[in-house]
Formats: sequence, C-alpha cells, structure tokens
Amino acid sequence: MEDVVIRPLEKVALRRPVLVEGLPGVGNVGKLAADYLREQLPAKPLATIFSKFFPPQVYVNEEGIVRLVSNDLTYWKSPKPDGRDLLVLGGDYQGISPEGQYEITDRVLDFCRGLGVTEVFTLAGFAQGKIVEAPRVLGAATSPARVEAMKKHGVVFSRNDPGGGLIGASGLFLGLGRLYGMEGVCLMGETSGYFVDPRSAEAILRILVRTLDLDLDFTAIEAKAAEIDRIAHKVQEAEGRGGEGAPSGPSAPREDLGYIG
Amino acid sequence: MEDVVIRPLEKVALRRPVLVEGLPGVGNVGKLAADYLREQLPAKPLATIFSKFFPPQVYVNEEGIVRLVSNDLTYWKSPKPDGRDLLVLGGDYQGISPEGQYEITDRVLDFCRGLGVTEVFTLAGFAQGKIVEAPRVLGAATSPARVEAMKKHGVVFSRNDPGGGLIGASGLFLGLGRLYGMEGVCLMGETSGYFVDPRSAEAILRILVRTLDLDLDFTAIEAKAAEIDRIAHKVQEAEGRGGEGAPSGPSAPREDLGYIG
Amino acid sequence: MEDVVIRPLEKVALRRPVLVEGLPGVGNVGKLAADYLREQLPAKPLATIFSKFFPPQVYVNEEGIVRLVSNDLTYWKSPKPDGRDLLVLGGDYQGISPEGQYEITDRVLDFCRGLGVTEVFTLAGFAQGKIVEAPRVLGAATSPARVEAMKKHGVVFSRNDPGGGLIGASGLFLGLGRLYGMEGVCLMGETSGYFVDPRSAEAILRILVRTLDLDLDFTAIEAKAAEIDRIAHKVQEAEGRGGEGAPSGPSAPREDLGYIG
Amino acid sequence: MEDVVIRPLEKVALRRPVLVEGLPGVGNVGKLAADYLREQLPAKPLATIFSKFFPPQVYVNEEGIVRLVSNDLTYWKSPKPDGRDLLVLGGDYQGISPEGQYEITDRVLDFCRGLGVTEVFTLAGFAQGKIVEAPRVLGAATSPARVEAMKKHGVVFSRNDPGGGLIGASGLFLGLGRLYGMEGVCLMGETSGYFVDPRSAEAILRILVRTLDLDLDFTAIEAKAAEIDRIAHKVQEAEGRGGEGAPSGPSAPREDLGYIG
Repeated sequence: MEDVVIRPLEKVALRRPVLVEGLPGVGNVGKLAADYLREQLPAKPLATIFSKFFPPQVYVNEEGIVRLVSNDLTYWKSPKPDGRDLLVLGGDYQGISPEGQYEITDRVLDFCRGLGVTEVFTLAGFAQGKIVEAPRVLGAATSPARVEAMKKHGVVFSRNDPGGGLIGASGLFLGLGRLYGMEGVCLMGETSGYFVDPRSAEAILRILVRTLDLDLDFTAIEAKAAEIDRIAHKVQEAEGRGGEGAPSGPSAPREDLGYIG
Repeated sequence: MEDVVIRPLEKVALRRPVLVEGLPGVGNVGKLAADYLREQLPAKPLATIFSKFFPPQVYVNEEGIVRLVSNDLTYWKSPKPDGRDLLVLGGDYQGISPEGQYEITDRVLDFCRGLGVTEVFTLAGFAQGKIVEAPRVLGAATSPARVEAMKKHGVVFSRNDPGGGLIGASGLFLGLGRLYGMEGVCLMGETSGYFVDPRSAEAILRILVRTLDLDLDFTAIEAKAAEIDRIAHKVQEAEGRGGEGAPSGPSAPREDLGYIG
Repeated sequence: MEDVVIRPLEKVALRRPVLVEGLPGVGNVGKLAADYLREQLPAKPLATIFSKFFPPQVYVNEEGIVRLVSNDLTYWKSPKPDGRDLLVLGGDYQGISPEGQYEITDRVLDFCRGLGVTEVFTLAGFAQGKIVEAPRVLGAATSPARVEAMKKHGVVFSRNDPGGGLIGASGLFLGLGRLYGMEGVCLMGETSGYFVDPRSAEAILRILVRTLDLDLDFTAIEAKAAEIDRIAHKVQEAEGRGGEGAPSGPSAPREDLGYIG
Repeated sequence: MEDVVIRPLEKVALRRPVLVEGLPGVGNVGKLAADYLREQLPAKPLATIFSKFFPPQVYVNEEGIVRLVSNDLTYWKSPKPDGRDLLVLGGDYQGISPEGQYEITDRVLDFCRGLGVTEVFTLAGFAQGKIVEAPRVLGAATSPARVEAMKKHGVVFSRNDPGGGLIGASGLFLGLGRLYGMEGVCLMGETSGYFVDPRSAEAILRILVRTLDLDLDFTAIEAKAAEIDRIAHKVQEAEGRGGEGAPSGPSAPREDLGYIG
C-alpha cells in the first residue's frame, strides 16, 4: 500500500485557503481547538488520510461500527465577499515514528498546495509543568513580518520559549511548509501538561478568530473549560487536605480527569 | 525481496467466498478458532504468506524439518448447492511492526479481493482481566445492517466495549477492508487474558457456524476447553489454599498452563 | 544507497558449491567455526557485503586503519577431482532489525544461487544455560533425507530442541533458502551461552568435515578450547570458594572471559 | 518525500576540495570544532540537507522564527594560489536510526564527490570517562600512508583505542567514503564525556590547521575553553568539600554546565 493514502470525498474550489492544523499533543490543546473550530464553523469533510505510520487500529463507536484511525481535512467557505476559506486538519494520531511524521506532513502539505494553500496555522499546547490560571499564547513563525503581525493580535514571542524548539506536527508543518514556499504561524497555548485543557484551546482560538476575522461562538468551550477548572480545583483542594498519605504530583490529577475531549 | 510474498499453491474458483481471519492475539482465541475451523471443515492449503515483517525465524517440527514462519490461506468449498465457500487465514504471527501490520493486511486483502471476497469475519479475544465462566461474544462491524444481523445470532454490541478500539489484525482487516469496499464483522470472545482459551474460541465458533450456516463438530474443542477449565480451577484452588507464600496473580496460571494450542 | 551492497572482488567458477554460514550469535559458536574453517582451508575473499541494516560503524585495526562493518564471502576450491567447492559466509554482525535480517539473507542467497549453490549449511550455538562438558551437535534440516543423512554423521535430532525454533541468520538461510529451492542443514553446537565457546565450534566443525569430506587441522581450535576450559574452571572454583561476597551467576564468567575469538 | 533532500543554495567550482565533517556527538567535540572552523574561515552556505531520518523538529530562534532541523554544507575558497578549498559539514543532528545514518552519509558523500571531493576529515570526541587536562588527538585513517602523515602532525595512533571502533557519522564518512574511492582521517579529541569540551575541539583544530595549512584565530575558542575549565574546577572543588551530602559523579557537572556551544 502507499505510505500515505489521501481519499478525497469531494472536489472543491477554495478562495485563498488557509490551513489550520490541530492534532493530538500536549494537553490535547491543538486537537481540542481544531475540533471545536470545525464543529462551530461548521466545516465539511473534504478528504480522509490513512497511513501505515498510524497505529494498526480501528475505533468502534457506540453503535458498534468500526472506523480505521485517520487524519481528516475539512473545509469551510467564508460567507464574506473577500473572506478567505479555511482547511482544518484534525485526527486521531500524529505519525508514530519520526519518518512517519515527515511522510504524512509532506503528503498533506503537497495535497493542500494543490488546493491553493500558501499559509498555515498550527495549534499546540505548551507545557508549563504547573497550573496556569490565564494561559498566554506563545508563538513561532516563518518570517519576521508574521511575528510582528501576530504580536499585534496578542501572541507572545519569548526569547527563551520554546527553548528546545517544536517537536511533532505543529513544528513540521511550518518547517516543511517553508520548503513548499508556505508561510506559517504556530500558536501554543500555555497549559499545565497534566490534563486536557480547553481553557488553553480557547485562548488560541480567540487569537485565531481575531487574526483570520472569523465569527465563532465560544459558549460550549467556555463551559467545558469551566468544568475542567472546577475538577482541577477540587483535586488541588483534596491534595491540600490530604496530608502525607494523599496522592500528589502530576499523576494524580491526570488519572482523575482522564480525557475529557 | 518483496515486503510481502504470497505463494499460491493452487488455483481455485470460489463461490461468493467469505474470508475468516484468526491470528495469534489475546488468549490466542482468534488463532484457536481459525485453526479449529480449518481442521474440522477441513480446509485445503491455498497460499503461503511470507514477509520481512514477521520475525526472522523458522520453526522445527518433531522430525527436525524447518519451516519459515508464515501466515497461510486455506479454502473450503461448501457442499450445499447455494452455500458460500470459505477462505481461512491463520498463521504463526501478526506483523511485528505497525507498518508491517498494514502492509501484510493490505496485500492479503488485495489477494482475497482477486478471489471474489466481499465479506470478512475476524476472530479475536477480548481480555476481561478475570476468569470468565461463560464467555459472551462481543462484536464490531462495518455497517448498522451487520450489527443488527449479528445481534440476532447472539453477538453482544456494548456501548463501552471495546473502549479503545481494536488494535492489530482483527481491527485492521475490517478497517482496511472498508477501503476495498468489503463488509465485515469482528467477533471477540471474552477471556481472562491469562492463558489460551479454547472455551472462548468455541463461543465465537458457535456464532460463526450459525451465521454462515456451517456444520462443525465441537467435540474436540469442548474437550480441550474442559481440560483448561480443570487446570485453571486447580490453580485457583492452590492459590486459595496458598497463604502468603503462594504464587498469585495472573503470572502464576500463565506459567503453569503455557500454550496448550 | 542500495539496502544491501554486494561487492565482488573476484570472478570465479565453482563446482557444485556448498554455502557454509557462520555469523555472530549464541556463544559466538557459528562465527568461531566459520572463521576457523576459512582460516584453515584457507578460503579466499570473493565478495564483501555492506548494508544499512548493519550498525553505522567502522572497526579500527592495530595499525589505525578503518574498515566498514560487513559480512564477507570467501571461497575454497576442492583439490579432489570430484570434490565440491565451498563458499563460507562470515562477518561482524547479523542484520540488526528483523527486516534487515530478511533483506540481507535474501540478497546473499540470490547472489549464491548465481554461483550455483543448491545446498546450505548454517552453523550456530544452542544455549543450554549450564556448563556443557562434551557438547552434542543438534540439527535441523529442510528434508527428511537430510535429517537421515546427518544422523549418520552424529548429529542429534531432538523432538523437543530447539523448541521455539531458530531465530536469526542460521534459521533464515534455511527457511528462505527453501523458497529458492535450496536444501540445507543447521548444525547447533551445545554451549552454556555464558561465554564464547570454541569447544562447541570444534564439535560442529568435526561434523561438517565428516559430511563434506574435508581435511582440517584442529590443533589451533583445540588449544583455544582448552584455554577457555581452564579459565572457566578457575572461575567455577573461585565461585565455589567465594562465599557470600563472591561474584556469581552467568554474568561473572562472561565479564572475565570477554570475547576470546 | 525523498529520504534525504539536499537543497543547493549556490553553484560553486572548488579546487581539490577537502570535506571536513563535525556533527553532534561525544562532548560535542566534532560539532564545536566544525562550527568554529566555518565561523572563523569564514565559510559560506552551499547546501542545506533535510531528512526524514532527522527528528521531526523545528528550532525557534530568539526572534521567534522557525527553522527545520538540518545538516548544512558550507564552503571556503583558499586565498593561496595552490591552496585547497574546504567543504565543512555541520548540523543539528546525526541520523537518528542506523539506516538513516547510512542513507544521509551516502547522499552527502555522493553530493561531495560531484564537487570533486576525494579526501575527508571527520572530527569527533573520544570519551575517557575522567577529566582530561591536556587532551591528545587520537586518529584513525583509511590507509597506512595517511596514518604516517598524521603521526607527523602529532596525531596519536593507539593499538587499543578506539577498541570498539567508531560508531556514527565520523566513522561512516570514512567507511562509506572508501567505497567511493575517497581517502580519509578521523581526528578524535580526548574528552571526559561529561560536558561539552571546547578544549578538546581546539586540540583537533590545531592538528587540522597544521595538516591543511590553514590560518585560524584561536582566541575565541581558547576563551571558551578557559571558561569551561574554570567552571569544571569549581564543580570539582565543590565536590571535594561536599562531604556525603554533596552531589557527585558525572551527572553533577553535566547538569551545571549544560550545552555551552
């Protein structure tokens, strides 16, 4: 089989489309943001991406129907006369080997270039290792002009963060994108790194909405964020009261909260 | 060498053949069932599948003759005038890397499509982590129609199980099969997961026989299941009597029972 | 680069050549035997085999000259009028991944087939987990006729050993060789598995010499075996005397004896 | 995508060019030396090398601009009428799998051969496991003539070091280079292996300068080496004073000094 199989579901013509990537990662921030974005726009299915660089796995839904793990591209056509259309890339996994990451990113970028994409936004979490009350959005970009533009929208460009660079899809879509002549920005929402973080996803979506001039209803993600806040505080309280025998450290809240995507 | 080498041993024309897959996995349930099925039908050798995605290993039989590890396809022609023929896939290993799993499954599906296969049954175990007296058969399928049909034959479709989806050949044959336009069902026999489980294999075979309208003699597998039950109970008793110094937990029965395929 | 690069050093015509394989493995028995064989015959260099499935490593000799790790084929022309010529395969490593094992074995077999090889002997160690005073030579073969022939030369074919089959080059050369229509025998010298074992290598060479009607001087390998015996016994004595503080178990002799190839 | 992508930035004609390789490794000695060399010459960018055998990672600089991890070739034209031009290979990583190491090295050598390279110098560190006050430079080469030539320049060829050979790019560039008909020398600066070591890098550069008749200003690397010496001595003193509770062993200085490239 081909290393990466892209199955188009529809044929569309898009106006100056922007690619927005959000796959599973730190605090699941990027995936939460991308999934919320395509739900709310709403975006329509455009193509499914299968690959032998994903795990050999199917998911089973509540009705018992199987679905091979994948990434998927959805599109949204702007209703504004001079608006830019969007492509949103989401999915179950990033490639599970370094080579797989390169191959999948390269194939998706090539496909998107064919649709006219010249600009990429990648969404990710930035682990701070402690509870973050009001997450900032850190940035990285492909050119000084993008850096300046994003600063105006509230993105923080830090001399020191991220120190070791970006590992995984959010970095690679920008790095390989440059080889395709694409410009791009990575938006990283601060997060503890201990559990899934809709608060951080909301923060990067607010920047994205401002930058791309989108209308988005934040009610549902705010509710989810409030719920996580409530659980996290309860866990913290329990730990505070717990004395020596109580569970503590990052593993405790992680186990209690699980994945609340 | 080719990644996957399929060596046909015979040329056959089959009537609306159904592929039944059963490879090593949890409790070896799928492999036990598939091996029993082809022994009892009996099915004839059709093709041997070698691959660099299997371990670099040969088996040596009691006469000292070596055989390269493989998967193999056998076929069975239904004696009924309107019966459907069967293809049974068994073997020593699943592919030992994720990429290998995809490559092997893809090649076998492609080969089977050439033989007219449009429907796949995959057989597997579902680990419950505790002794299961009367194993249920859980299901997953490629379409709501299949789900309804299998419910009538006694398969349980649970909202929660399998929660994380199916990993390995039994999931992949359905997931990739859909890309080939094939329909399919996975039958998962409940099992402790601590030792090989002919009782669970028997349970899924009884469903399969009903679904595909086959005649199968269950005497031998029932005897094997009774033997395992007897040993398992002895182990449980020994543990109950054992006090602090006795072996306990899953590792103890596993070591005692070994592979009783 | 090609996955496997075979660099011929010479062009030869061989009479009904037999391939003898001996690469590093359990107790280094196969490699010791093959290296001794080609030294004593002596065999001449025929081809060097490089591969990206070997470690990315060069060896440096005592003069400071580097050499990329490799396998190598040497040949020997029988002086007897109706004698069979030999090809001996030795080297630094087996392929370091399962796929690499398959690729390298396949390419070498293909090359050897081009030289007229229809028969393969693979040499290996068989770990017994305890000191073996008089190592037997266990066998496995591609056909009943070979099994019978080897029994006459003193090879032991056991119903139970090797139970899990053969893993690595010595098994694969027979298993893949069958796909090329080659016949073959694996000779496994019993060994403790704790250190390199020239005594075991000598045992398999004595069988090989009888089977292929070769003349071989065993003086040097007997001396080496005697030396290892002497050290091993000293280690055993030290352990016996050692009391609680003394090193014990397999790791102790292994550290003391190192690789005495 | 291609396994290894070489992006030329300029087209140059070089006079009898020599390739100097220095990538990350033990004590980062090779990379420190190569980076210093191209800074001081100064060498100009010639080609960037991307690969799926590098980690899927981008670096972010202090201005927030991303850059895909890479290796890169720079060149320097000798101002002397009969001087030899240089190619310097540096970068962020070596290939992260054995196969990747082979593929990248092979492609770079092939590219360099196209530029007329017939001679390679590889720069590396040699870990001694203890503080080395005056690092010697150990050598390995492709021919006796090179060994003799390098001895005259002060390189030490030891019967025992490096005992296990050279693993990674510095060995592979020589080993594979020989298959391309290239001659080469590996220069290994002694180093503790506990932290980055500009003193060792300086030692190999002084040999290289003598061998290739280059003019190089050593002021900056001497300053860096003095700074590391100062810190290392402070750490040693602290350990000496520290008593039982003090940190000790290799991990302590490593943590304190970090990467001072």
